[in-house]
Amino acid sequence: MSAKIPRSNENDYSPEIIAERQAFLEEKSGTQLSHTKHFSYDPESMEGNCEHLFGVAQLPIGVAGPLVVNGEHAQGEFYVPMATIEGTLIASYNRGMRVIRESGGVTTTVVSEAMQRAPVFMFKNARDGRDFCQWLKDNFDEIKAQAESTTSVGKLLEIEQYPVHNMVYTRFDYSTGDAAGQNMTGGATFVACEWIRANYPKLRTYGLSGGMDSEKKTSFVNSLKGRGRKVTAEITLPKEVLASVLRTTPELLRNSHSIASLAAFLTGASNNAAHPANGLAALYMATGQDMANIGEANQCSVYSYVTTKGDLYYSITLPALIMATYGGGTGLSTQRECLELMGCYGKDKAYKLIEIAAGLVVAGELSLVSAARTDKASSTNEWVDAHEKLGRNR
Amino acid sequence: MSAKIPRSNENDYSPEIIAERQAFLEEKSGTQLSHTKHFSYDPESMEGNCEHLFGVAQLPIGVAGPLVVNGEHAQGEFYVPMATIEGTLIASYNRGMRVIRESGGVTTTVVSEAMQRAPVFMFKNARDGRDFCQWLKDNFDEIKAQAESTTSVGKLLEIEQYPVHNMVYTRFDYSTGDAAGQNMTGGATFVACEWIRANYPKLRTYGLSGGMDSEKKTSFVNSLKGRGRKVTAEITLPKEVLASVLRTTPELLRNSHSIASLAAFLTGASNNAAHPANGLAALYMATGQDMANIGEANQCSVYSYVTTKGDLYYSITLPALIMATYGGGTGLSTQRECLELMGCYGKDKAYKLIEIAAGLVVAGELSLVSAARTDKASSTNEWVDAHEKLGRNR
Amino acid sequence: MSAKIPRSNENDYSPEIIAERQAFLEEKSGTQLSHTKHFSYDPESMEGNCEHLFGVAQLPIGVAGPLVVNGEHAQGEFYVPMATIEGTLIASYNRGMRVIRESGGVTTTVVSEAMQRAPVFMFKNARDGRDFCQWLKDNFDEIKAQAESTTSVGKLLEIEQYPVHNMVYTRFDYSTGDAAGQNMTGGATFVACEWIRANYPKLRTYGLSGGMDSEKKTSFVNSLKGRGRKVTAEITLPKEVLASVLRTTPELLRNSHSIASLAAFLTGASNNAAHPANGLAALYMATGQDMANIGEANQCSVYSYVTTKGDLYYSITLPALIMATYGGGTGLSTQRECLELMGCYGKDKAYKLIEIAAGLVVAGELSLVSAARTDKASSTNEWVDAHEKLGRNR
Amino acid sequence: MSAKIPRSNENDYSPEIIAERQAFLEEKSGTQLSHTKHFSYDPESMEGNCEHLFGVAQLPIGVAGPLVVNGEHAQGEFYVPMATIEGTLIASYNRGMRVIRESGGVTTTVVSEAMQRAPVFMFKNARDGRDFCQWLKDNFDEIKAQAESTTSVGKLLEIEQYPVHNMVYTRFDYSTGDAAGQNMTGGATFVACEWIRANYPKLRTYGLSGGMDSEKKTSFVNSLKGRGRKVTAEITLPKEVLASVLRTTPELLRNSHSIASLAAFLTGASNNAAHPANGLAALYMATGQDMANIGEANQCSVYSYVTTKGDLYYSITLPALIMATYGGGTGLSTQRECLELMGCYGKDKAYKLIEIAAGLVVAGELSLVSAARTDKASSTNEWVDAHEKLGRNR
Repeated sequence: MSAKIPRSNENDYSPEIIAERQAFLEEKSGTQLSHTKHFSYDPESMEGNCEHLFGVAQLPIGVAGPLVVNGEHAQGEFYVPMATIEGTLIASYNRGMRVIRESGGVTTTVVSEAMQRAPVFMFKNARDGRDFCQWLKDNFDEIKAQAESTTSVGKLLEIEQYPVHNMVYTRFDYSTGDAAGQNMTGGATFVACEWIRANYPKLRTYGLSGGMDSEKKTSFVNSLKGRGRKVTAEITLPKEVLASVLRTTPELLRNSHSIASLAAFLTGASNNAAHPANGLAALYMATGQDMANIGEANQCSVYSYVTTKGDLYYSITLPALIMATYGGGTGLSTQRECLELMGCYGKDKAYKLIEIAAGLVVAGELSLVSAARTDKASSTNEWVDAHEKLGRNR
Repeated sequence: MSAKIPRSNENDYSPEIIAERQAFLEEKSGTQLSHTKHFSYDPESMEGNCEHLFGVAQLPIGVAGPLVVNGEHAQGEFYVPMATIEGTLIASYNRGMRVIRESGGVTTTVVSEAMQRAPVFMFKNARDGRDFCQWLKDNFDEIKAQAESTTSVGKLLEIEQYPVHNMVYTRFDYSTGDAAGQNMTGGATFVACEWIRANYPKLRTYGLSGGMDSEKKTSFVNSLKGRGRKVTAEITLPKEVLASVLRTTPELLRNSHSIASLAAFLTGASNNAAHPANGLAALYMATGQDMANIGEANQCSVYSYVTTKGDLYYSITLPALIMATYGGGTGLSTQRECLELMGCYGKDKAYKLIEIAAGLVVAGELSLVSAARTDKASSTNEWVDAHEKLGRNR
Repeated sequence: MSAKIPRSNENDYSPEIIAERQAFLEEKSGTQLSHTKHFSYDPESMEGNCEHLFGVAQLPIGVAGPLVVNGEHAQGEFYVPMATIEGTLIASYNRGMRVIRESGGVTTTVVSEAMQRAPVFMFKNARDGRDFCQWLKDNFDEIKAQAESTTSVGKLLEIEQYPVHNMVYTRFDYSTGDAAGQNMTGGATFVACEWIRANYPKLRTYGLSGGMDSEKKTSFVNSLKGRGRKVTAEITLPKEVLASVLRTTPELLRNSHSIASLAAFLTGASNNAAHPANGLAALYMATGQDMANIGEANQCSVYSYVTTKGDLYYSITLPALIMATYGGGTGLSTQRECLELMGCYGKDKAYKLIEIAAGLVVAGELSLVSAARTDKASSTNEWVDAHEKLGRNR
Repeated sequence: MSAKIPRSNENDYSPEIIAERQAFLEEKSGTQLSHTKHFSYDPESMEGNCEHLFGVAQLPIGVAGPLVVNGEHAQGEFYVPMATIEGTLIASYNRGMRVIRESGGVTTTVVSEAMQRAPVFMFKNARDGRDFCQWLKDNFDEIKAQAESTTSVGKLLEIEQYPVHNMVYTRFDYSTGDAAGQNMTGGATFVACEWIRANYPKLRTYGLSGGMDSEKKTSFVNSLKGRGRKVTAEITLPKEVLASVLRTTPELLRNSHSIASLAAFLTGASNNAAHPANGLAALYMATGQDMANIGEANQCSVYSYVTTKGDLYYSITLPALIMATYGGGTGLSTQRECLELMGCYGKDKAYKLIEIAAGLVVAGELSLVSAARTDKASSTNEWVDAHEKLGRNR
């Protein structure tokens, strides 16, 4: 008979019940807990973040910077906190930030915004589905009003329609302010769908999650239409800087990018960059983002060319960057501190954080692409050397 | 003029230099750090994990379980530590584990293993590339010996070859014991490549990272050939259990899966599941895994059918599950404790951990798929309700 | 020194110049041409279809039917001409048509229409690109007027926008009447782009073909947004019919479809059907369609489920079915006859032809899926048998 | 009550039954057939190619050339017959061939060969599947012997294994001589599978067509592993030739390719070229290939870079080029003549034909990419002009 995890219906975040769970786990596993028990938070502050709480994970945070960002929301120098257990990672991003500084900073632009819920509507046949598409368009204003009745922040921007078979997959696209917005949009879309059901008798049924939101996974629909914020970071790298800091040339970097892009195309990879997930994960972890979003946020494209002056235009577009400065884990004490280090905590800061994140990704690419570049000099094996020298923990 | 982050060339993990960095950041940001400064680790234990260290992130850890696993390496009941800031997540996985328990446990199988480095070799033309493919096969034993000379653990299993244009992309596939192995295989492949360069004069040049490893991103080559460990988790869910615990039927669950699978196919999504990244991220964070691997590990396929007895066969194959029980962040104090709670710390435990992770993913799918199921009852909107009731931190 | 192909600047379709080319080819190759010289057309009728004309290919045409279509444009029984050199193919489609007849016909619906040209617009940076997106929306009416000034048939329906990096990829979506419309939309879009260039000074340059039309290749953007006509064909197959005609059951067919769909998902295939390209190619060839469109038209999705009555709902959505009943090769003599056999030649017939084509695809799937079905009975190897018995030409 | 298509069980290719079918169709449609009746073939020669024969389609054939190929099997100048109804197409390919000639010819290499049948094997669970993978390897020699017992030409080269869930998808890879080989490999794989079934008791069942062959559709598994012949065509284009013939530069062409490649990557297109399907379809139709293979054969990748001398290296790899010089439609009279024009009819000619086809694709790309290039000069709109001048048939 399985033993149940101790739980209190009254207050599951009291020191007593937490201690009870700790004792239960120690007994079950024969392990003495020591460090996980050690935290500086008021446990009740974690209600709404974590059920069956018994401790905390401590994750080392380092800092890279300054990252010079020429954004519309983030402007100036930023010291970026990164929580990671991967040795050499922060050193690598730091090197990339030097390239950015010496090139005058990275320019960032939030291009569009849309957080989705993606209900699917089911009909008797394709004709009913097709007709529903028209009805949806005709009734957009009322559906929008229904959806927005549930939230003071979320705005329904568009309903994407993908009719197939006897179904219509949709994506309800919202702007969500400083929150990532998955829950806000879930509630709003539910109310909208119920109104649709009440008003469109030919609807057989619907599912609130039809799957076309691609939540927490990469997809071409996200790549094309965006999810969360779509952001582009651009930089023109003078050939002199590439030579002095990265010991490479615009042509070599571009060729390296071509070869990686071809590999991405041939394998159907979700990005043609080197390692955007590394920097994003470290920043997400430090700032209280939902780590599972790494499953979609690292999708991106890299594009570069040699300019007529012989420098390198280099840019990255991240179509599904999901980050919050409010709600979720952003209010937890260490996470909030990390947001504050960049002036990104709280209201009206989401775009600023997004821009810093995009710049961070560029820093990581510049550093690593150069280290693993495909000319003969690569055989001096800087990439491997970096790991040897700074060590990784084994 | 940018201010440089304080750094000590002698010992960058002393309390003094860490304090200096904290003061620097406080001054730069005008923020008072308090919680990030608070940690129970010996800072020097974080050398090799994090440069420019200035503190730790504290992340709440809860527990779900017991998860009943009928694996080849993991057998019995496991209480799974999950670090997360997403309210309702642990509750959801916990509900799925109940379904698993009442169905007799989840059966897990590590199907294959291969960690890659993926050099690309460049030639004058395609004919030279084609001939090189044959030479690689003919000289596999010597190349293997060269690669394995650098590691006591890694074994070179195969060299996948993808000749295109005047290049040959390869994937050097290794088994890596209890480590994830990205660095081990990097060093081994470098030595092998240098030997190849010395012995194959027609080689123009090579790049150590040609891009076909799809490191930290999803891709079809990973889906087909695997990366890290490929693992399948299977369960046959009796219709009675589905009715009593999830209030659904095998047919409804299968239809729901069909609709989600169609969405995944139409959008080119990297998985046709509901949210594998959630459980994986929480387990990764608790146990010291490289969080950036979420960018590739959540790729998976779900497959189900109604059995002749009217029950539901349900399974998930994760082709690129990268986890370690040794090295990296696994030795950090809280992370190690979490591994120990499952008897998964240290040598010869990687397969066990992989099996638990695969079972965990199944738990999450069973719970969420049911909550968002696409029949009429879904309009009672359990999924939205769950978030309202348990709250999320906003 | 290369010998130039004989060519007449005055009339390159006169019997004399054609004879000259034939003689030239005979001499160059040492081959006696006989059958290719043999055609019933007035050679001048082929002007505008083929340069350097020297003869015709003769391709056998058979007929399958009747195909019972319950369309909005095609209603009733159709005998479908199929030009093919693949033995067993027509027999297979014919068998599928019997299943359709006994099930009461296939229901077809043209869901949407859009032929594209896909210019890309280039800017100094992403911000200029983002602003251009808004300008495009604001000026849609004028752009539409410009585009439509070039054609009496084409209508500009929408401009899809995909801003990335310092570019904005677009898709100009048109309805094109009975023509396939690639050329009509090329001319219209060119005029629109020139107007844009004259009126948007921040535009650096543009390319008329940015690549997002996915012309003559499959893609996810076509799958999602459609190209040419998007059409769905649906049928509910009574279990009795499946048993008597195909010796299978709804459950077996659905399982077979699940397994094929999983393969398509895992491999990133452009359709999860069995062989839509076969029937489409045969119909395209008979009716004077552009054969290169097979490169995009065969993209499709299959979706099926067992109904509450125990029958099989089965449907196919073809998102990029490009066919014409006017222009191109449709006016050539044999091609026109084949169109006339179905009452599909000329004006206002394109939707009718599209519906017949969609029904044809269903016929082929039903026949082949059954023959290759994955139950034990498949080992009686009907699929192989069919080829042995009817032979293929070798 | 539907009228049945007239059919003779004795000889369905006699003039009488053909006439009966023609009369039947004329009566049913109220159309007078005239041109389709007109053919120079002995109708019995079409047995094995087409059931329910009632006539032929006549398709105009033009010629382009000479195409200079520096292949291993095709060497010298070739005049390429192209059957098409798309005006300007042959003129365009012809222009590309001039570029090739002035650049010294296109170098072609058949890189690998493998025609597949792709059975799926089903088991009780994933462990049985995994063990079967090992058994397949251990018994490869016997399985190969079984498969090859059915054919004097086909050779089983490899069995690719893709274990997922409780199944093992496979691809049986064969070399097939001068035939395309779909039927040959179907028969061989059936015999092999039956032997496997008799000798592996834990096998539950299998399906001969599991779907991973991606027959007649594009897929990443074909892109990676090849299907039919994988061929690369390469050329170094001197900057002087680009200037004089195409009025462009290496840098402009490469930039144009970058932009098209990015579009292909972002949309998940099956090739990053301009229009390979056009030339392939025209050559396929002229030479009696299976037109449905256009659904897979047009998958390809383009790769280019500016050389140190300032010229343009340009190449295309077609991973799934399926063509035959024997069997199928290659023996029909006009088709055979077209093969003979290139010295490609009959035994030991398949590689030669493949190489010519690959060179042809390069010719089409060079011409069109240049016409639609993305610099300012493109607005002189050569691409649109070409269609206006040569006309298309409407």
